[in-house]
Amino acid sequence: MRGKTGEKPARSRRCIGEARFRNGLCSARARKTFATTPEPEYLRCDLYFLSTSQRNFDGCDLCGLGFRPDYRSLFRLTERAFFFMDKNRGTLYGLSVGPGDPELMTLKAVKILKQCPVAAVPVTHRGNTLALDIARKIVDFSDKELLLLPFEMTRDKEKLRLNHEAQAARVAERLALGRDVAFLTLGDVSVFSTFSYVAGILKEKGYAVTMIPGVTSFCASACALGISLTEMQRPLHIIPAGFYSAREALALPGAKVLMKAGSQFPEVRRAVLESGREAFAAVDCGLESEALYETLEDMPEKPGYFTTVIVKEKP
Amino acid sequence: MRGKTGEKPARSRRCIGEARFRNGLCSARARKTFATTPEPEYLRCDLYFLSTSQRNFDGCDLCGLGFRPDYRSLFRLTERAFFFMDKNRGTLYGLSVGPGDPELMTLKAVKILKQCPVAAVPVTHRGNTLALDIARKIVDFSDKELLLLPFEMTRDKEKLRLNHEAQAARVAERLALGRDVAFLTLGDVSVFSTFSYVAGILKEKGYAVTMIPGVTSFCASACALGISLTEMQRPLHIIPAGFYSAREALALPGAKVLMKAGSQFPEVRRAVLESGREAFAAVDCGLESEALYETLEDMPEKPGYFTTVIVKEKP
Repeated sequence: MRGKTGEKPARSRRCIGEARFRNGLCSARARKTFATTPEPEYLRCDLYFLSTSQRNFDGCDLCGLGFRPDYRSLFRLTERAFFFMDKNRGTLYGLSVGPGDPELMTLKAVKILKQCPVAAVPVTHRGNTLALDIARKIVDFSDKELLLLPFEMTRDKEKLRLNHEAQAARVAERLALGRDVAFLTLGDVSVFSTFSYVAGILKEKGYAVTMIPGVTSFCASACALGISLTEMQRPLHIIPAGFYSAREALALPGAKVLMKAGSQFPEVRRAVLESGREAFAAVDCGLESEALYETLEDMPEKPGYFTTVIVKEKP
Repeated sequence: MRGKTGEKPARSRRCIGEARFRNGLCSARARKTFATTPEPEYLRCDLYFLSTSQRNFDGCDLCGLGFRPDYRSLFRLTERAFFFMDKNRGTLYGLSVGPGDPELMTLKAVKILKQCPVAAVPVTHRGNTLALDIARKIVDFSDKELLLLPFEMTRDKEKLRLNHEAQAARVAERLALGRDVAFLTLGDVSVFSTFSYVAGILKEKGYAVTMIPGVTSFCASACALGISLTEMQRPLHIIPAGFYSAREALALPGAKVLMKAGSQFPEVRRAVLESGREAFAAVDCGLESEALYETLEDMPEKPGYFTTVIVKEKP
């Protein structure tokens, strides 16, 4: 079925989403489309009757460049909507490679990474590209453009913003050429990843962004240790180093995961031993240098950056 | 290199772990072996000098049936230890199939599931086998024995214990025959999974247990919604329905994930709307019936069992 009154969009556009509505109500599928479709350049509706928003739409081809309809009111009075984007623009994938063991990549991450001509890879100031090293053991990168992104480690918010803008601009150059970009992230892309900053900037510029979830370091650590992270009906707290004092963290009900606990390890260990609680640790889980500990007692004072401490509720 | 004084173990035993020590210190690799090797039936050491534990070991073949050395003191005085288990026993795998989309299974989960002749599958009282339905789209089950495990949903602890014992016994029957068993779990096996109870019982009986991590429902929900779960340096709280009141949960610093929030949805929604915070929801993430919501406002009163609500810190 074609739109009854809408013009065909220009050939240079590609449909990036379609939402269907029933009796003026938004279906679950349509909601999903609204939630996940990036800001389109162009939007066409079937049977668009009347606007309830402040904006006064006057036709069916609602969305030329620079025009932004109010989707939430739009879907109440539309039967079907199509979203279009410049055909020549690539998609940015936030691609989780998991915690370290290459076999913990998902089928989806491998499939999409294989299809992307560009891989964007965060690189530390020492030149480490851990996410790339992991993915390389599964996927052939010889035909891919490698875009190394040197993210700054600073608490200066203005410096950080400028750094993120600069890296986003480099990614945008590739997307503008119609090249899909896989942005590799350690663990899962929705948990403590720099990806969200770059994605936010690029979404605002109208680029399509898709996130591919992965295995988190804390799940992999628990599995390597052979323990459950949670007790039934009890909460689980994922705590980045330094947010709470170790004592405050231990006072929370349920299980606690202290992420990147290497820097404050002596304090963490002291608090855990004083509390008498059962605690486990994994250093560099899934990597060659992996070390697992059933107790914090005889761990080194500085166990390394990727130290995950798991504190159980019961002693 | 063979052990200098140890006898060769009987032929019916297979080596399930090897730990090496240096200058009386436990290496990271040895620690891992101690943490992940199940209780062996038999243990052989190279150069075992003297026991520091209460137990008085008298030789190199330390571990006959029913004998349990104190590993932590053992490794201080040993150069190398080998762990042996009855060759004819199978391994139990806690196999995470992810949240719903079959392509979110990891390469490792697919590989191991293909190798296991038995698949143990939790089944609800309505006969649903969701984890199996997901894995079936990727792996052929026609040659596998399907072991359906009807877990009871009750708060009666004694009933639960008996139920877990009964299911564990059925799994043990297969392991005792030397058949590896893949216990399929939704999401990640270390997070709110019945697996831990069954695994605990079987570990005590001396069976080898290995956990294969997977993608959690909350990471997949965040990715489907195109949002980050966390803010940098701020905590993330994973809260099962009913542990906190909705208001208490919202008062925690950082981001909150309310798991299986369907049952208390009206209360959750009221609290979220009153707080003015930004909240998202995913129902049946990755399944056919998936629905995503950018706001809780116009969700149904009873959105379904697998409803994940994500509450961000900033309004």
